[in-house]
Amino acid sequence: MAELNGNLLVAQSGGPTSVINASVAGVIMEAGHHEGIEEIYGGLNGILGILNEDLIDLGDEKRSAVEGLRYTPAAALGTCRYKIDFKKKPEKAAKDMDRLFEVFQAHNIRYFFYAGGNDSQDTAHKIHLEAVKRGYEMRVMGVPKTIDNDLPCTDHCPGYGSVIKFNATVVTEVGLDVGSMATDDGSCCIIEVMGRAAGWIAAGTVLAKQGDPARPPHIVLLPEIAFDEAAFLAKVKETIAAHKYCIVVCGEGLKNAAGEEIGADKTRLDAFGHAVLAGAAEKLKEIVQGRLNLKTRTVLLGYAQRAAAHFASQTDAEEAYTCGAVAVRAAADGRSGLMPKIVRLSSNPYKWTVELEDLANIANVEHFVPRDWISEDGFLPNEKFVEYALPLIAGEVKVPTKDGLPQYVTLARNPVEKKLAPRA
Amino acid sequence: MAELNGNLLVAQSGGPTSVINASVAGVIMEAGHHEGIEEIYGGLNGILGILNEDLIDLGDEKRSAVEGLRYTPAAALGTCRYKIDFKKKPEKAAKDMDRLFEVFQAHNIRYFFYAGGNDSQDTAHKIHLEAVKRGYEMRVMGVPKTIDNDLPCTDHCPGYGSVIKFNATVVTEVGLDVGSMATDDGSCCIIEVMGRAAGWIAAGTVLAKQGDPARPPHIVLLPEIAFDEAAFLAKVKETIAAHKYCIVVCGEGLKNAAGEEIGADKTRLDAFGHAVLAGAAEKLKEIVQGRLNLKTRTVLLGYAQRAAAHFASQTDAEEAYTCGAVAVRAAADGRSGLMPKIVRLSSNPYKWTVELEDLANIANVEHFVPRDWISEDGFLPNEKFVEYALPLIAGEVKVPTKDGLPQYVTLARNPVEKKLAPRA
Repeated sequence: MAELNGNLLVAQSGGPTSVINASVAGVIMEAGHHEGIEEIYGGLNGILGILNEDLIDLGDEKRSAVEGLRYTPAAALGTCRYKIDFKKKPEKAAKDMDRLFEVFQAHNIRYFFYAGGNDSQDTAHKIHLEAVKRGYEMRVMGVPKTIDNDLPCTDHCPGYGSVIKFNATVVTEVGLDVGSMATDDGSCCIIEVMGRAAGWIAAGTVLAKQGDPARPPHIVLLPEIAFDEAAFLAKVKETIAAHKYCIVVCGEGLKNAAGEEIGADKTRLDAFGHAVLAGAAEKLKEIVQGRLNLKTRTVLLGYAQRAAAHFASQTDAEEAYTCGAVAVRAAADGRSGLMPKIVRLSSNPYKWTVELEDLANIANVEHFVPRDWISEDGFLPNEKFVEYALPLIAGEVKVPTKDGLPQYVTLARNPVEKKLAPRA
Repeated sequence: MAELNGNLLVAQSGGPTSVINASVAGVIMEAGHHEGIEEIYGGLNGILGILNEDLIDLGDEKRSAVEGLRYTPAAALGTCRYKIDFKKKPEKAAKDMDRLFEVFQAHNIRYFFYAGGNDSQDTAHKIHLEAVKRGYEMRVMGVPKTIDNDLPCTDHCPGYGSVIKFNATVVTEVGLDVGSMATDDGSCCIIEVMGRAAGWIAAGTVLAKQGDPARPPHIVLLPEIAFDEAAFLAKVKETIAAHKYCIVVCGEGLKNAAGEEIGADKTRLDAFGHAVLAGAAEKLKEIVQGRLNLKTRTVLLGYAQRAAAHFASQTDAEEAYTCGAVAVRAAADGRSGLMPKIVRLSSNPYKWTVELEDLANIANVEHFVPRDWISEDGFLPNEKFVEYALPLIAGEVKVPTKDGLPQYVTLARNPVEKKLAPRA
């Protein structure tokens, strides 16, 4: 198919990762190789910025800045949690969609790339369907991104390898610290990591064991396995007896048998109507201190874990970049409504390739840690998980430093001239 | 003075750091150059292990393991928070002291090195005085170690540079993350760092600004400055108006005007009778969300910050090593009752040397951030602080990695044969 002439627009959505900018770098660098692609624009703060016609000219950015995106965390274009919700707010959604296509037409956008997780792939899918319905020729591609690793169809998601590499490093280091303070009293540390519904992030910290059962983490609590307080306390006691200390990792979305999140603060909801979570680790601390009278401390990594580019996975950054580049090649080749997915060819040695998946199969489907990748007692991911996760953390992204700190890039963000009246 | 013939004992005490093992490496490597020093022993878990005659033979360790201590976090010999308290428990203290000297004599310990913070320097000082009183010839040296940076007389403490390097990196990365999510709503992130009485650790994160006022941290709350809720909320609002997001760093020991810690859980005390702190960030989050209705998240770095050897300061590690080596040289030279201190010769270019200070001047004295190193409004350390702190984070310690994770060393810990009956 002949290349479609027009401009490219790329935007980012949802929670950032250490490598979502690497995907944008892949889009920009690859776009330069396709004659049909004329201008390369970025949408600020995802859909929200596009609705406001806040576009920037990525063709104006220095090459060094674009290269720097390969090691710069967070969303260099800005991100949002804005949902086009035809079910709950059909009128607003229809109006938003009209506005998006006004912006696309005004700027002759013929290539649209949206990097994000489940909700963002859903948005990309809706835009693709809408383009087809309207007969507006535009190639729409989702670009996978989520530390949560909960997208279906793809072997894993760009962003995941880096978050578990950092978190496993933290578990290793905190384990040495707590272990070195362990006297006969014993002490316990609970490290809370992200992961609302799926426990992939918590599970990934098992890599810190490096094959040694004595090493931390000693207990990993996943949202997939209902929290059993008695069994947990017994496991903590057993661990303290064996090692004099105990490192527990818990996913923020840990649930009891009734399916209620043990640390949920249900008074606040995010833009997607999910409960805002806080405090699974604090809750577990109360339980351990209260029931076992064991000195217990918590670590809440929060945003630090998904932004820790100073120790990001080189494998992850390369895959993220490649997903961006493959999306552009596919679009240039006439494809639309797809998302690049990572296909594993072998685990040892690790070999992978990128193929394409229909967005209809991705949007709003969540992918959980398989039960048979978790030990029978539910307290540790097993060797099947380790085989899966280990290759994803290989290698370190090289980040330049100055005066002892990482030097990340910020884009010049030269605005594209607006052509429309402000959004109503 | 002729060298004293006998064995060396080194032990670690208090909370670990990323570089306290580097000091032990300095002791071990330097000890090998002094003929008077015969065996090199380590005491497990500080004073506690010495009381139990739990000594290990550091001369048996592989050279690669000793070299590895230069980049391995936590306390490789184990640590403790055990206080010989003549004031509160005079009988127990006297009994402990008798036992310590039984162990020293049984193993012909003539060189004793104790690496730690305020409480540990106090212990070293007491042991030195006791040795003099008993006429037991032993050279006792404190080795400075504390992320808190609150020891007097020394320009700064080994361990401090590494913790602020990591924390400033986290602030940089979390700032990019939160900034990239900032839409018109604004969002706030509160990062709680260690620092019970002194705000050195919180203050150190100001380096993340790298001279740019717009960069995070936007507000740094130090225990030295009484927390003023109204002024704080005004500053958050002002920051959100200017930047659309706000990164707040707070020391765990933040206090109100009445001197009460805002996040203290007074139901638990540690071995030294200090209140165990938790929750300054959670308390601030409640305030910001409640009063400003601003989306607010927290990060609680906890033990992760002081164990983050994967991004430790090379300057810090070198200074820690040198302090250990200088302590041995001084002891071999006949000195006792001293602690190596770091003396700054110039800040730019950074030049330093190590001198010796009487332990009597160190023990139990706390050193705070000077008021004139903090902005008038109390919300940010100023350029005097930056000049002081910037050189301390220079360079990165190189840590070997395998399968994507840092490879730290563990000692073989061959036990020294016990010669005494178990402690009563």
